[in-house]
Amino acid sequence: MACSCGYDHGATGADDSISVEEALGMALSLASRLDPETVPLQEALGLILAENLLAPDPLPPYPASVKDGYAVVSADGPGIYPIISEARAGDDAKNDSVQPGTVVYITTGGPVPDGADAVVQVEDTMLVEEGPSMLKRVHILIKSTKGQDIRPVGYDIQKGEKVLEKGVRLGAAEIGLLATIGVVLVKVFRRPRVAIFSTGDELVEPTEGTLGRGQIRDSNRAMLIAAAAQNQCIVLDLGIARDKSAELESKLEKAMVEEADVLISSGGVSMGDRDLVKPLLTERGKVHFSTVKMKPGKPFTFATVDKPLSKGTNKSRPLLVFGLPGNPVSSLVCFHLVAVPTIQYLSGWVNPALRRIQTRILQPLKLDPLRPEYHRATVSWTEDDGTGHAGIVGYGEREGGVAPGIRSIWWVTSRNGGRDVGFEKTTEYRCNKSEIT
Amino acid sequence: MACSCGYDHGATGADDSISVEEALGMALSLASRLDPETVPLQEALGLILAENLLAPDPLPPYPASVKDGYAVVSADGPGIYPIISEARAGDDAKNDSVQPGTVVYITTGGPVPDGADAVVQVEDTMLVEEGPSMLKRVHILIKSTKGQDIRPVGYDIQKGEKVLEKGVRLGAAEIGLLATIGVVLVKVFRRPRVAIFSTGDELVEPTEGTLGRGQIRDSNRAMLIAAAAQNQCIVLDLGIARDKSAELESKLEKAMVEEADVLISSGGVSMGDRDLVKPLLTERGKVHFSTVKMKPGKPFTFATVDKPLSKGTNKSRPLLVFGLPGNPVSSLVCFHLVAVPTIQYLSGWVNPALRRIQTRILQPLKLDPLRPEYHRATVSWTEDDGTGHAGIVGYGEREGGVAPGIRSIWWVTSRNGGRDVGFEKTTEYRCNKSEIT
Repeated sequence: MACSCGYDHGATGADDSISVEEALGMALSLASRLDPETVPLQEALGLILAENLLAPDPLPPYPASVKDGYAVVSADGPGIYPIISEARAGDDAKNDSVQPGTVVYITTGGPVPDGADAVVQVEDTMLVEEGPSMLKRVHILIKSTKGQDIRPVGYDIQKGEKVLEKGVRLGAAEIGLLATIGVVLVKVFRRPRVAIFSTGDELVEPTEGTLGRGQIRDSNRAMLIAAAAQNQCIVLDLGIARDKSAELESKLEKAMVEEADVLISSGGVSMGDRDLVKPLLTERGKVHFSTVKMKPGKPFTFATVDKPLSKGTNKSRPLLVFGLPGNPVSSLVCFHLVAVPTIQYLSGWVNPALRRIQTRILQPLKLDPLRPEYHRATVSWTEDDGTGHAGIVGYGEREGGVAPGIRSIWWVTSRNGGRDVGFEKTTEYRCNKSEIT
Repeated sequence: MACSCGYDHGATGADDSISVEEALGMALSLASRLDPETVPLQEALGLILAENLLAPDPLPPYPASVKDGYAVVSADGPGIYPIISEARAGDDAKNDSVQPGTVVYITTGGPVPDGADAVVQVEDTMLVEEGPSMLKRVHILIKSTKGQDIRPVGYDIQKGEKVLEKGVRLGAAEIGLLATIGVVLVKVFRRPRVAIFSTGDELVEPTEGTLGRGQIRDSNRAMLIAAAAQNQCIVLDLGIARDKSAELESKLEKAMVEEADVLISSGGVSMGDRDLVKPLLTERGKVHFSTVKMKPGKPFTFATVDKPLSKGTNKSRPLLVFGLPGNPVSSLVCFHLVAVPTIQYLSGWVNPALRRIQTRILQPLKLDPLRPEYHRATVSWTEDDGTGHAGIVGYGEREGGVAPGIRSIWWVTSRNGGRDVGFEKTTEYRCNKSEIT
């Protein structure tokens, strides 16, 4: 299919197209993990730890009471005893060794003084009223056992224990654990720098009030910027490129100058004569795939472009370029299925992959005979998914619509047997074959 | 259980304790939705739309080609035709009406000119070689049907159609849709301002290198700050309060001055004599619950404190105060089960609740005879969950440990029949009874 631009836009014979799994494998094989960097604790939330961390102290670092009550000598048993001190925190009761026949008032988390080997909770005691001139006394009502309601030194974490492994994703609990062991500057894999632009003579900025004939507002860029932000990327907005080689080259150059790790374009990968993304990438880099057996998303393109060597280094990571289709649904599906796991890999994720579970589809679907399909859908858990068992069910959004569901998910259905469902929030669902027409 | 501070710390008879469901219901009933505000598009990601939005234009706003190819008169059928113009974007081919016997080259998304009623994709055509003096011609190889490969005006969205509803949570797809309809400043429910502090004489800052006797690093504050950030809150870090009424009051005052919507404290709610959070809240506001039938989390406290009336308004929302237990696991569990849905409600979520699904537990658990338990666990999907069906299974983290899993989730098990599993990432899982000893 010869074209005046010289590029054969029609050269997409069935032999060239690869599966989604192959496309993902290809992108992952060409990606390499980004370097670690050290960031303040709260900036590490959602990122991947880049080192093993050992506990410098045991936790608790002292024998700690589990309850509010009294530190006792368990062998004393029930009885009335003088309260010789109070141990709440810090150096409380430091010099008060608990002799048999005495007790120390203690609060939850307080340090158990030497000599005491159990804590009796306040509910199992009763204060004894005394005159003002005497020590307070308490009636211990029960017999305690050695170690009762005490967390010994190191009960939660031993000194030197590995508390967090390289590769762990840092959520709130992990942030707390880092604070526990005194780590306030954290070594994490750095966030990918992702540059994004849209292509198309038909596009105007979203701020445009009135549309001229043949114009639509650029929505993919805003959508992909948001999707990249959801994946902890540092986003570089490169705007709109018109359908001219020089403008596309300029975006590519800008991505290089801005030290992007990933470049994402939308549009310009179809078979039109002004679809110039593939020709440019072929000329400036290496196109690894440009046709994928998926619906939507067939012209999904991936390439690498070598970056100029920086002074002082003799190797550099190539720029990973995802040429997404212009159709918004297509664009987002391709982004989630291939770009997200690739971004995760760069970001240090140990298992970069969308989560997959099985669901039953609640409606019949007519499928493309050649290409696996990906649909948006909404899923929910139910007590009976139609088989008499609890499970997850889903129904699809209408064809051709762009209306988003509360949670949009994707699934592919294929007469070849695979039933993969992708989830907008990085989860894929696999459907039962029996529900597909 | 009289105490020298005057407050009866022991007044927690079984009559006072409520279930987690009641606690959640109580907190939700006392919360009210925050006011909407207008923010730039990308700042709206993850927030809840506060108005219905109608499409000002149809989408597509002109009849758009689905393919790269030729706009034709379908009645012409196969044949060789002159290409009279090109329609890619904007005003292309505006004045070229497609007469029978002519075609217009068109690209994906291009405007179909008047007179054409179908598009034939380029794969079903072949360019005809011509001498330089003649118009280009193309061989249309197939018979097309009226409307073929054309998205008519309004096919995706009709003009005036409601494209996004108040209450929708804005993800990447929704952000794209907002850009499509030209909305770049979005009316959303504002983010809650959440003030957080820790209490305890035993606490030192996480930056502390060497711990003195009876000291531990404050980890709850960092953990809760991260958890609040994960829930789109604006977080105000109020530091550590020592176990003195005056210090706690000062934190409460600071929260008021900073116009917090929610105040979260950890520690200071047990039965120790320096547990001053409940006494303070009783004095300054109204405590709605202070004992919950859950393990861990029994002393979980919730109160409201009226804010001073601002000039010009005659009503104000009370400050919602969550007094979380000092134990880190306890703290995070209570935060997720009650504070998160409350924060969601403030933030405009239509159904503020943790997501719940059922899982099978892979290990036996010995349960507390009185209180439903919440455990951390890791779940995964499997083809056979033990019943011969696909499902989600989970195993628990070790008792007493603080080591986080890759994904930590919670579940409660109870001989009363309820088997609720809570998920760190706002999902609860319900376990099958048969797996619990």
